Order: sequence, then structure tokens, then C-alpha cells
Amino acid sequence: MSDLQIISVSLGNRSYDIEIGSENLEHIGSFLAAFKPISSVVVVTDENVIHYDYAHQVAESIAETGIDVHLLSVAAGEQSKTVETAATLWETLLEEKIDRKSVLISVGGGVIGDLGGFVAATFARGIRFFQVPTTLLAQVDSSVGGKVGIDLPKAKNMVGAFLQPLGVLIDIKTLQTLPETQYQSGLGEVVKYGVALNAGLFQLLETNIEKINVRDSQILKQIVAECCRIKATIVAEDEFETTGRRVLLNYGHTFAHAFEIQSDFALLHGLAVSIGSICAARLAMRMGFVDEIFLKRQISFHQALGLPTEIPDGIDWLQTIELMRHDKKSEFGKLRFVLPTGLGSCRLVDNVDSQILKHIL
Amino acid sequence: MSDLQIISVSLGNRSYDIEIGSENLEHIGSFLAAFKPISSVVVVTDENVIHYDYAHQVAESIAETGIDVHLLSVAAGEQSKTVETAATLWETLLEEKIDRKSVLISVGGGVIGDLGGFVAATFARGIRFFQVPTTLLAQVDSSVGGKVGIDLPKAKNMVGAFLQPLGVLIDIKTLQTLPETQYQSGLGEVVKYGVALNAGLFQLLETNIEKINVRDSQILKQIVAECCRIKATIVAEDEFETTGRRVLLNYGHTFAHAFEIQSDFALLHGLAVSIGSICAARLAMRMGFVDEIFLKRQISFHQALGLPTEIPDGIDWLQTIELMRHDKKSEFGKLRFVLPTGLGSCRLVDNVDSQILKHIL
Repeated sequence: MSDLQIISVSLGNRSYDIEIGSENLEHIGSFLAAFKPISSVVVVTDENVIHYDYAHQVAESIAETGIDVHLLSVAAGEQSKTVETAATLWETLLEEKIDRKSVLISVGGGVIGDLGGFVAATFARGIRFFQVPTTLLAQVDSSVGGKVGIDLPKAKNMVGAFLQPLGVLIDIKTLQTLPETQYQSGLGEVVKYGVALNAGLFQLLETNIEKINVRDSQILKQIVAECCRIKATIVAEDEFETTGRRVLLNYGHTFAHAFEIQSDFALLHGLAVSIGSICAARLAMRMGFVDEIFLKRQISFHQALGLPTEIPDGIDWLQTIELMRHDKKSEFGKLRFVLPTGLGSCRLVDNVDSQILKHIL
Repeated sequence: MSDLQIISVSLGNRSYDIEIGSENLEHIGSFLAAFKPISSVVVVTDENVIHYDYAHQVAESIAETGIDVHLLSVAAGEQSKTVETAATLWETLLEEKIDRKSVLISVGGGVIGDLGGFVAATFARGIRFFQVPTTLLAQVDSSVGGKVGIDLPKAKNMVGAFLQPLGVLIDIKTLQTLPETQYQSGLGEVVKYGVALNAGLFQLLETNIEKINVRDSQILKQIVAECCRIKATIVAEDEFETTGRRVLLNYGHTFAHAFEIQSDFALLHGLAVSIGSICAARLAMRMGFVDEIFLKRQISFHQALGLPTEIPDGIDWLQTIELMRHDKKSEFGKLRFVLPTGLGSCRLVDNVDSQILKHIL
């Protein structure tokens, strides 16, 4: 463990740290020591993560500091982000005598972070929460921002809360065991930060494509830190999604959600965002916000990282428009998009004409 | 509708109003108008309340202002304060296209307030919430303080959140249809405020026993307002139950919870609090905090209001002590009580000897 990066996330009168390192998982016990007294810790993880021993390393490191640790594992995948799994976890926490001086730690990807966070936000009206994201997507996205929640059978993330964690520990080493499509899905969100929000990050990515493709730890640490910093800044300005600032994080997402739903979520989120970002760039070009050079540069950049840029088969343009009209972020059935206005900048555009969209799709 | 009392509850940088009146239910539409834009309203109530038309009056008053209103009714009683009912409500809200500009209004007793509030706190990560408590217990207790939640099969109120409402509207007229035991259960909490927290309220109650027993609207309005004011002051000092101030609201409650559990909740909460308050007073006398005159005055006061003072049959002292040791509010198995130190004052006493308790029980 060397060369740790610490990013401080400030929210109102609270703040917390994101620690980014390599092979720092086994030192979580000392990170957590700052939050004593802790009556007990419950580690929530899934069967995939258990397989790579990450949850055990976390549990052991904490147990070494003398704190009681309970390890709970749920089935891997979106299927666990349900009311039923949350209910099972609540009842287990009660049996394990978890109380308001306990800490719940999510070790895993976005599903585990969201599910564990929701359980922490609601058990005994809220216990403390800590995040150890082990996928690239979770490291750069869902672990910053305080959104936790579960799905309803007919709508993702429909039930939830805002809960800021005590802290986040990111071990870049965990990315080495990530399946390739999962890694690419994370890159889809990384690219979003660069294109829509930060030209410096875009340039860092563009000049390090080879290293990114071989998952070089040094460059990944730098990229993850930069993404967390960008997201933390935006979230600090708009914690509860009320000022409109936070919506800028949704570059590519209006399209992406419609694609994900139509694929029955077989299309991974970050890959859908990758395609959605290209759609948004095309739309921005049609509306005169960016030129063709911008679009082409983005497309070849996505391709160099192995990211999809074309709308997959089976996506119907009419259904896509209907789904986008009723996106959770839409209001009164209007078509709203975050569109690029240049490299690293974007804006929210309301009331887009569905005729223009038809051409894009 | 005349002679409204407005109590302002201040919490950090937010505040909301409690409006207390008689026959003011049908004017809720104009109270709510201050919170526009409102895309739609969902009224959550139960089958008992529906019977008295209160929920319909609320729905009609709001519909008259041009807002879409959905009326949802669940089975009456604690059986509805479950994960399953919450899940059904979440799914119904999704079907009814309830969004972040909607308001959820609970019309009913504590169960409906807690359940509706929990659903509001979590649907779409939180929509706005309004309370119309129709039982005395809910009017003086659960409608102030922002605690919302549901039960787990093995523990009441184990899952929940803190959610301050947009406002609270109390119509004293609804108390006229309350079954006698429900009314007395409410009085159990009212008496608690007087004995433990406010000598002025105690005197008001003691000099108006006849009027209270015939449910005189004028005196009830005064009493409810005073209880809300007392609770609001304490909650403002300790919104999230962290400073220890809020625990003083639990006079009689450590005993009460143990009695309720042993009765399998056949003993109503406020009646358990009434008995628990007498137990706490006896304990305080044994520990030298109050004299026998205090205890006797409290007992005859409870009796004049028809409130129970004796531990009912079937309550085992050993089990009571065990249950109190593991109360949600206890820490590390210590026996903690809020004990009176005089009329209208009390303090938290830690580490009470179980031998003394044996004598009380």
C-alpha cells in the first residue's frame, strides 16, 4: 500500500474522505478506527465478490481491531436489489443485534452499494454506512453522491434515500479481477466525465488509451480519483438534486435508460451510457451545439477503448422516444437531454423536438 | 372552522406549521395551496377512517383546488405497518405516476402516519409528506417529531427514517368518533407530557378532568396544542435523537414497551404508558427523587381520567426486566429510565439496580 490519494467530499456541514489506493483493502480497519465507538460491523457483499476474497479481507482487517464483524452475502446481480432482499437483510441485522452504534459496509459493485446503503439508511432509522466499491462503475459513480436504493419490479431505483457514507475506500487492485464487459461498462461512465464535464480528464484518457486497455494500476488510480473529484464537486453543489446542477451527470443517460429497458437490462449500464453519449453528441451536432469534428473525435475515442457506439439491434426508435418522455428525470412528458456544447462542457436542453430525435435514432 | 391555533415547529433551517382547529378538515385544500406546484396528491388512510369520511373530506377539499387526488386505503391496525404493505403502496404510487412534485398525505392514526411517512420518505428517494392525524395519540405524539417507519415481524418501528412533514392539520372534531379505549390511550401520552415535562399542562389537565372525560372540543384543542408545543420544543433541540434531550419524551416508555410486548400488543400503547408512568414514579420514589405525595397525586389523577395504574395480569417481572434491558433505547444491556424529579420535570437515570426494580414490579 503506497501512494494513497484522498479526496474530501464536502456536503453542507459534513464531509467524508474517499481513499484511493492499490492493495489498501487490508488496511480498512485503521481507516475505520477514526469512527469509534463502533459496537459492531456488518459487511454486505455478493457471491461473486466473496469468490475473490475481498469481503473476507475487509472483515479480517476490521476484526483485527477488536470489533465484532458479521459477513452477509446475497446473490450477485440486479436480482438482489429488491424489497425482498432488503427485508431479509433488515431481519438478519435485527437477529445479529446490530444497533445505532454499528456500521454497515458494502463491499461490491453498484447493486451492493445501493442495497447496503438503503438498508443502512432505514434500519433503526439509520445506521452508519461505509463503501468499498470493487467495480470500476461503482468506484467512479455510485460510490459518490449518496444515492442508495432498491428496484421495484417495474422501475429501477424507485425506492431509496440520500445517505452520505462515513467514508469510501477504493482498492484499484480489485479491478484486475473484473470481467471485461464490466470493466468496459465502467469505462462508459469514465468517458462521460471527460466528454461532458472535464476536458483535462478527456485528454488524460485520450493519451493513455493503451494503459487503460491493459488496466494499468497507476493510470487507473489517477482516473478514478479524477472522476470522484469531478462528481464530488457537482454533488456538493446539488446534494438532493434540486438545483439542476446534478442533472449534468446524466450526459447520455436519457438515451441509455431507454436502451437498457428495451434490452431488458441485458445491455450493461455503462455500455448503454457509451452509446447514449454518442446519441447525445449526434443530437448536439444536429442542434448546432458542436461540430462534426467533435462527434468524430468522440466516436474514435470510444472505439479505441472498445466501447460500443452504435444502437444495438432490437431497439425501436418510437419506443425509445416514449421511454425517454417518461424518464424519472423528465417533467410533464417533455424530452430533456444533457447535450455537449464543447469538450468538457454541456448543458440541459429542454423540449427537444421528437422529429430531430427520429433522425438520430 | 374558527379559532385556529398554529404551532410552528423549527428544525435547523426548516420549519413547518401544525394547524389545530375544529371542523377544519374540509379546508385542507387552502392550507396545501402554499406548497404549489403540486403535480398530484395521494391520500393514504385505513378502512376505519374511511368509514367516518375524513379521508374523503380531505380528498374533496384538495380536488376542489384543481389537483389530481388518489385515495389509497389499507387495512386498519398495526398489521398494516409492514414491509409488504409498504411494497404495495410503492408499486401503486408508481402506477399512479406519483412523482417528486407530488405530496403524500396520511389521514389516520399512528400506523397510517408512520407507514405513509415511510413510503413518502423512500419513494423516488423522497416525496413531500403531510399529516392529518385523527386519533388523540397521533395528534399529540406521532405527528410531531418526524419519525416514520414500519415494523419487522420481530420488532416494532425497526425500519424507518426521519422525515419532517410539509405541515400537519389537526381537526379536533375527529376525536368525537374515536372508540373510548383509543381515546384513553391518547390520554396516557397527554398525561406523560404533564407529569414529566410541564407542570402548567398538568394543572390544566387536573382542573379540567370533567371536560376531558366528555371530550369537550375547546379544552381538547388547548391540550393538543400544548402537547404539540412541548414535543416540538424538545424535537427542535434533538431532531435525530443524538443529544439525549429527546429521550425525556420516553417517560414511562421503557416499562410500557415491555408490557406491550408481553401482552402481544393487546394492551394499547397509551394505556401501557399510563401504567409505565406510575411504575416510573414508584421507582423514582424508591430512589428518593420524589415523595409519596407526588406518587399518590399522580395515581389519583390517572384514575380520575379512567387511566389504568396497575400492572395487568400475565406480566412477569423477570421477563419485564429482561425486555427492558434490551429495549431499542438501551445501551450495552444497561437498565435506563426517565424518572420524574418533581412535577413537570424528569431526568435520565442510567444503570438502575434490578433488585429495586423487582420491588416495583
